Amino acid sequence: MAVTVVGSIAFDSVKTPFGERERMLGGAAVHFALAASFFEEVCVVGPVGDDFGEAELDVLRARAIDVSGIDHVAGGETFFWAGEYGWDLNSRETLETRLGVFETFQPELSAVARSSDVLFLANIQPDVQRAVREQCEGASFAALDSMNLWIDIARPSLVQTIAGVDCLVLNDAELRQLTEKPNLIAAAREILSWGPPGPSVIIGKQGEYGAALITADCFFSLPAFPLESVIDPTGAGDTFAGGFVGYIAANAKGAQPDEQTLRQAMAYGTALASFNVEEFGTERVARLTGAEITARVAELARITRFSDAPVDLRD
Amino acid sequence: MAVTVVGSIAFDSVKTPFGERERMLGGAAVHFALAASFFEEVCVVGPVGDDFGEAELDVLRARAIDVSGIDHVAGGETFFWAGEYGWDLNSRETLETRLGVFETFQPELSAVARSSDVLFLANIQPDVQRAVREQCEGASFAALDSMNLWIDIARPSLVQTIAGVDCLVLNDAELRQLTEKPNLIAAAREILSWGPPGPSVIIGKQGEYGAALITADCFFSLPAFPLESVIDPTGAGDTFAGGFVGYIAANAKGAQPDEQTLRQAMAYGTALASFNVEEFGTERVARLTGAEITARVAELARITRFSDAPVDLRD
Repeated sequence: MAVTVVGSIAFDSVKTPFGERERMLGGAAVHFALAASFFEEVCVVGPVGDDFGEAELDVLRARAIDVSGIDHVAGGETFFWAGEYGWDLNSRETLETRLGVFETFQPELSAVARSSDVLFLANIQPDVQRAVREQCEGASFAALDSMNLWIDIARPSLVQTIAGVDCLVLNDAELRQLTEKPNLIAAAREILSWGPPGPSVIIGKQGEYGAALITADCFFSLPAFPLESVIDPTGAGDTFAGGFVGYIAANAKGAQPDEQTLRQAMAYGTALASFNVEEFGTERVARLTGAEITARVAELARITRFSDAPVDLRD
Repeated sequence: MAVTVVGSIAFDSVKTPFGERERMLGGAAVHFALAASFFEEVCVVGPVGDDFGEAELDVLRARAIDVSGIDHVAGGETFFWAGEYGWDLNSRETLETRLGVFETFQPELSAVARSSDVLFLANIQPDVQRAVREQCEGASFAALDSMNLWIDIARPSLVQTIAGVDCLVLNDAELRQLTEKPNLIAAAREILSWGPPGPSVIIGKQGEYGAALITADCFFSLPAFPLESVIDPTGAGDTFAGGFVGYIAANAKGAQPDEQTLRQAMAYGTALASFNVEEFGTERVARLTGAEITARVAELARITRFSDAPVDLRD
C-alpha cells in the first residue's frame, strides 16, 4: 500500500452563506484520501461508530481507497463537528464538537498500513500521531498536520512528533505561533533548524491566498486557484495535503522528493483544494476526474507566469 | 512629464516590534514617486507645510523627481500620521492623524503635470481625485487607490470617480466591501461590469500574500517576495503601485497596456514593495538600484515556476 493516512473520519454539519448540509461525510482523513487517491493507492486508518455505514464507505471505495483500516467501534458514535462560516468564508465558528469514538482512539495499524512508503498524520493529538509514526517506521516520506489547539496544550509532545517526520504542513499563523517568530520565512527556518532529525520540508497553508513551501534551499509559493464562487472551505487544507502528498508518493518513488517534484506536488495540491471548495464536503472531489485536475494545474501555471526579461531602469 | 501622482506627502511616526521612527518622510505620493522614478519621469503634486524642508525635497530630487508640483502652504503643517504595528505586522493601530494642509487641499495642476501620459490618484477624498482626473483628461492610463474610509462615508462619489479611471488598486478586503461581493473574483467582475467607462484593470492588494490582477480576459497572481525580516510595512501598497504604474508608463507607450505588460508590471510592483518593507519609511527604496530590482524580479519568477507537464492520474 503506497499511502497510509491516519486521522479523523467524521460527520460534519456545515452552514455557509451559500447553503448548509447536515451530517455530511467529512474528516481530515477522508478529504486527504479522496485527493491522494488520484495518485496512489491509499489506506485510511481511523475509528467510526455505529452511525457510519455502507453509504459512507462507498464514497471511499468508489475511489479504490482501502477501507480495511477503518475501525468500527461497536456502540460508539462517529466524530461530529458542526460549524458556521462568515460572509466571506474567512472566519468560522465551531458550534459543536463531539469526539465520540476518537476520545479513546489508540491506533493499531495492520501489516498493510504499516508497510506504506508514505504516511500522512492528519491533525490529531500529537502523542497518537507519534505512536502511528513509530508503527510505520519504514515509510520513506512522512508528513504531519496539526492545529493551534495542540500548540496551546501539548506543545512539547507536538515538537517531539514533528522531529519524526519529513514534512510539516501547517497554517502560516500556526507556524508563527509554534515558533514565536513573526513571519513565515523566519518560522520555517526555525523549524528546519530543529533537525536532524526533523522536517526538511515546511508548508505554510494560507487559505484563500494559497500556500508556500520552504526547504533549506528553496522557497516556492502558489496562489490559490481563483474561483468566482466558493461554497464550503471545509476540508480544503486536507484536500491540499492529499494532492501534495499523493503526488510525492507517485513520483518520488521511495526517495526524498527533489525540488521539482515538490513544486509540482504543490500545484496538484492547490488544484485539488480548489475543487474541494466548489461544493459542500466531499461532493465535488468525489466525482472529479484526472483530466479536470491536469487542466487546472495547467491553468495555475498560466495564472502565475510572467516574463522576467530585464528592462532598462533609471538608476 | 510621463507620470503625475497626486496624494499625501507626510511625516510618519511609526512603531513596529523592530524599532521606531519619529516624523520620517512618508505619504502615499512620496512612496509612489520613489518607486515609479525607476521607470519614468515623475511629477509629485500635493501640499506641505512650513515644517517640510529641503532635506525632504532632496530625497525626491535625488531620484530626479519633479517637485515643482509640491505646494508649500505658508503657515500650514504637513500631514502627520502616527501608528503602531502588532507583533506579526498584520494589524496596526492609528495613534494620531493630523490632516494639516490637506484639510483644504484643492489641487490646481501645472501645465506640465496636466500633460502627463499616466496619472496615479493616490488615496485621498474621491471628489478631489475626480477634480484631478478632469484636469488630466489627456492621460492615456489613469489608476486610483482608495480606502475603507471613503467606501464608508463617500461611496457614491468614489464610484463616480472609479468610473473615470482605467485601473483600480485596492486591498482585497476593500474590493469586497465596495461591491458587497464575498470574494475577490466576484468583486472584481462586478467592478469591471460597471463600465464603460470604468476600469478595465482591477488589482487586489493582499499585503504579505502578494497581489492579484483581474481583467475581462485574464487573472494573474503573484505572492509577495519572501523576506525573513520585515521591518515596516508602511507605504508598501503605494510602493507597489509606483512600480506597477511606472512600469506601464515606460512600456505601454501611450496605449492601454497589454496582458504581458500588466503581468510584468505586477512583478516590478511586487519587487519594489518588498524592498520598501525591509527598512523604515523610504530608507531602503531611496538608495535602491535598478540592478537590485531586476535581480529580485528574476528571483520572483523562480519562486513561482513549476512544470505543468501532465502526469498519469488514477481516475
